[in-house]
Amino acid sequence: MIGHDPTRTYKAVVIGAGSGGLTLAIGLAGFGHDTVLVEAGRVGGDCTNVGCIPSKALLHAAVSGERDPFGYVRRKRDDLATREDHEMEEHEQIHLVRGRARLTSERDPHVVEVDAPDGTVHRVLADNVVICAGSQPVEFAIEGMSDDTLVTNETLFELHDVPGTIVLVGGGAISLEMATAFRDLGSAVHIVELADRLIGNDDPLVSSTIRAALERRGVVMHIGTSIERFDEPTRTAHLANGDTIPGVDTVLLAVGRRPRLDGLGLKEAGVETSDQGVVADGWGRTNVDGIFAVGDITGNTLTTHGANAIGRRAVRAIALPYLPKTGDPRAMANAVYSRPEIASVGLSPSEVEAMSPAGRRRYEIQMPGIDRGYTDDLEHGVAMVDVERFSGKILRAAIVGPSAAEIIGMFTLAIDQGIGLRKMFAMVHPYPSYSQVVGQLADDFARDTYPALPKEWWGMMRGRVKNRLARR
Amino acid sequence: MIGHDPTRTYKAVVIGAGSGGLTLAIGLAGFGHDTVLVEAGRVGGDCTNVGCIPSKALLHAAVSGERDPFGYVRRKRDDLATREDHEMEEHEQIHLVRGRARLTSERDPHVVEVDAPDGTVHRVLADNVVICAGSQPVEFAIEGMSDDTLVTNETLFELHDVPGTIVLVGGGAISLEMATAFRDLGSAVHIVELADRLIGNDDPLVSSTIRAALERRGVVMHIGTSIERFDEPTRTAHLANGDTIPGVDTVLLAVGRRPRLDGLGLKEAGVETSDQGVVADGWGRTNVDGIFAVGDITGNTLTTHGANAIGRRAVRAIALPYLPKTGDPRAMANAVYSRPEIASVGLSPSEVEAMSPAGRRRYEIQMPGIDRGYTDDLEHGVAMVDVERFSGKILRAAIVGPSAAEIIGMFTLAIDQGIGLRKMFAMVHPYPSYSQVVGQLADDFARDTYPALPKEWWGMMRGRVKNRLARR
Repeated sequence: MIGHDPTRTYKAVVIGAGSGGLTLAIGLAGFGHDTVLVEAGRVGGDCTNVGCIPSKALLHAAVSGERDPFGYVRRKRDDLATREDHEMEEHEQIHLVRGRARLTSERDPHVVEVDAPDGTVHRVLADNVVICAGSQPVEFAIEGMSDDTLVTNETLFELHDVPGTIVLVGGGAISLEMATAFRDLGSAVHIVELADRLIGNDDPLVSSTIRAALERRGVVMHIGTSIERFDEPTRTAHLANGDTIPGVDTVLLAVGRRPRLDGLGLKEAGVETSDQGVVADGWGRTNVDGIFAVGDITGNTLTTHGANAIGRRAVRAIALPYLPKTGDPRAMANAVYSRPEIASVGLSPSEVEAMSPAGRRRYEIQMPGIDRGYTDDLEHGVAMVDVERFSGKILRAAIVGPSAAEIIGMFTLAIDQGIGLRKMFAMVHPYPSYSQVVGQLADDFARDTYPALPKEWWGMMRGRVKNRLARR
Repeated sequence: MIGHDPTRTYKAVVIGAGSGGLTLAIGLAGFGHDTVLVEAGRVGGDCTNVGCIPSKALLHAAVSGERDPFGYVRRKRDDLATREDHEMEEHEQIHLVRGRARLTSERDPHVVEVDAPDGTVHRVLADNVVICAGSQPVEFAIEGMSDDTLVTNETLFELHDVPGTIVLVGGGAISLEMATAFRDLGSAVHIVELADRLIGNDDPLVSSTIRAALERRGVVMHIGTSIERFDEPTRTAHLANGDTIPGVDTVLLAVGRRPRLDGLGLKEAGVETSDQGVVADGWGRTNVDGIFAVGDITGNTLTTHGANAIGRRAVRAIALPYLPKTGDPRAMANAVYSRPEIASVGLSPSEVEAMSPAGRRRYEIQMPGIDRGYTDDLEHGVAMVDVERFSGKILRAAIVGPSAAEIIGMFTLAIDQGIGLRKMFAMVHPYPSYSQVVGQLADDFARDTYPALPKEWWGMMRGRVKNRLARR
């Protein structure tokens, strides 16, 4: 429902109605608790309005022959946002308050002040506070470039015409997905990345594979450089390395995210923060009793599924306080819905690197060499896994290729349940699925690990017969 | 190498160089054993020449803008077949003999006679015989229809032009894949199925979902009927139900497979057969010591991955006879690469039906209702799972939808490792992947199974918040 009772102490006040906040509000309502949900913008947050939903809708529209791709995107986005908005306004146990929330030093109960759009200030009393204020794109000006040209994910989906030429600044998930979509829509696409490779927090082999795949599709890469200035009359981007990109219609700034910490009153409330955002544990708990933080604002996760997963744990922590707070959050895969897709799960590459090389092994399979890659004429794709040397316990898996975001699920389950490649070895994958790459990784592990058996045996075991032949 | 020594007793003679036979020959060679590989047709068998490889190549060519789709298919097929052929001719431990093999009553060692194309008869002596003779399409004549019009999978890929109208007789995997490919190539496509539904050995909900999906794509269904006669001058198929299909260019007969038992001398050798084919166990063993059967000829599996998986076990049984023959073959998923795909794993629907209803539960999620289904405007798709009631142990899972053949892998692994939905409940799936449907199935299981927790809690837990909203 709309509005709250300023004299009543609620079970929780949830700041931000995005993926994390909705999980909290609906979850706590499920336990019979009334919550106050504070939102300054649109219900649904970034995911619904400027993130997952519009980007995936555009990726779909780009290949489904939609005559008005941006219209499709906005229709999908707005229909969902309207439904979510309506749901929150109608919910009997969720009290929706529009405005900007600010924590205070008052703790018993916690007091949150909300600056409403009409200038009034609401006081909300609650036993718990959950900060789900999200993140926003890192922004900076480019010399000579107008606001009409320079967009972020927050304004990109307002486009009406497919740009003739689009420049994507940054080589992360957003750029890779949008490079895919705009190429499929017919734009000339340039990626400008300051670092020496794309998707720099992932493995170098992931970077080089997705780079090759997108270049093959016609995306032009400008790596290790940046836009120095923009010449508006000729619409030319001048890069630091001397290159120029003429005829630029749109420039998307997608160089990273920063937590929306400003104005939240975190200091007043004594909530600890770091460069990443609000410091919170796997249950969403901050350093202050009864104050939780979930989702992008913590920097622990920048995904909807991450906010949802930790949000579900925070609901349990608040609604069932006697619940033992044991166990780590489950393995959370990352996925980029470029074509081909990218997915990874487990430790980060740097965490793997930090482990003793003697205790781990890396296996890699090129996906063009598996049979489905052969029938589909796949040119670029790879699956790789880092495992503990003898147990085959999975430290990290990463895939660049068709359906990577779905295939990764086998590794997610394996990590959750402590299943290593040793146990996955005899697994049978449907022929000729892309999942057969998992079987080949397990074969390679087995061949490498059990040298007591005749080495030729493993030569056979790696085959999936045809694959072995096709690789020659 | 080509040819064998008729005086020498080989470790094994392998009859048929398809998916099963190649696994055996290469596998035993890997253990250092010389084998004789007998093949009457092309090396690579059905999979390479008339099955998986050309069908998947055509499915790819149908959407990749190939100007000569059948040329692409034949190039992919022939390149692989040539490579496989060459590999067998060059292999030092594999002795390739061209001709039709026939078992005899001589057992110590086993004697197999091969009728070569030139009329000579070769004798092959071996400690073991492995029958991998495969299967062939069930064929029958249709009144009034010429051989030019009526094709099977063995002749279909010789087409040069995309037919204006193609009729697919049978509603199984081959028809569903070819319906997809020919629709995408622009043909008018009709499926004629005698039974009351498509893919009749699968679940009725699978049947109705793929039917709706293909109908939406323009495939015309004629269910519960058959072609009574064909009028060649008008090229009209007259169906038993009175319907007519005019202007038919090609009719594909895909009503089933039968094992290639004829002429193999099974009776002479005392090998037991059934209606399905050669009776063999999970290690490929027949009733006769030292005689094995692997793949389609057994009817235990009609897939390349099935032949490969049992073939690997048969290699171990022959090469490591002291190996304890314990453990069942791993779970083998079935996959149909139609668009959308179909995949299933575990017990058959009838095996599930035979179990006490009190001890099991069925959960179903419509895939258009998950978030990726929403952004992709998916109209038809479903995921379903049958589980043991309280443990959540997976009896059977089936999926109709994008990437079904990849998503099914999580259930394959779960079945192999005894992981039930209870343990899969907290699993985190990337947003917005299609794999999230697995999370929703687990949520439904948990809500249904643990009613001691407030029921509203489960209302929350089912959400992946947006999904819950989007379903309304």
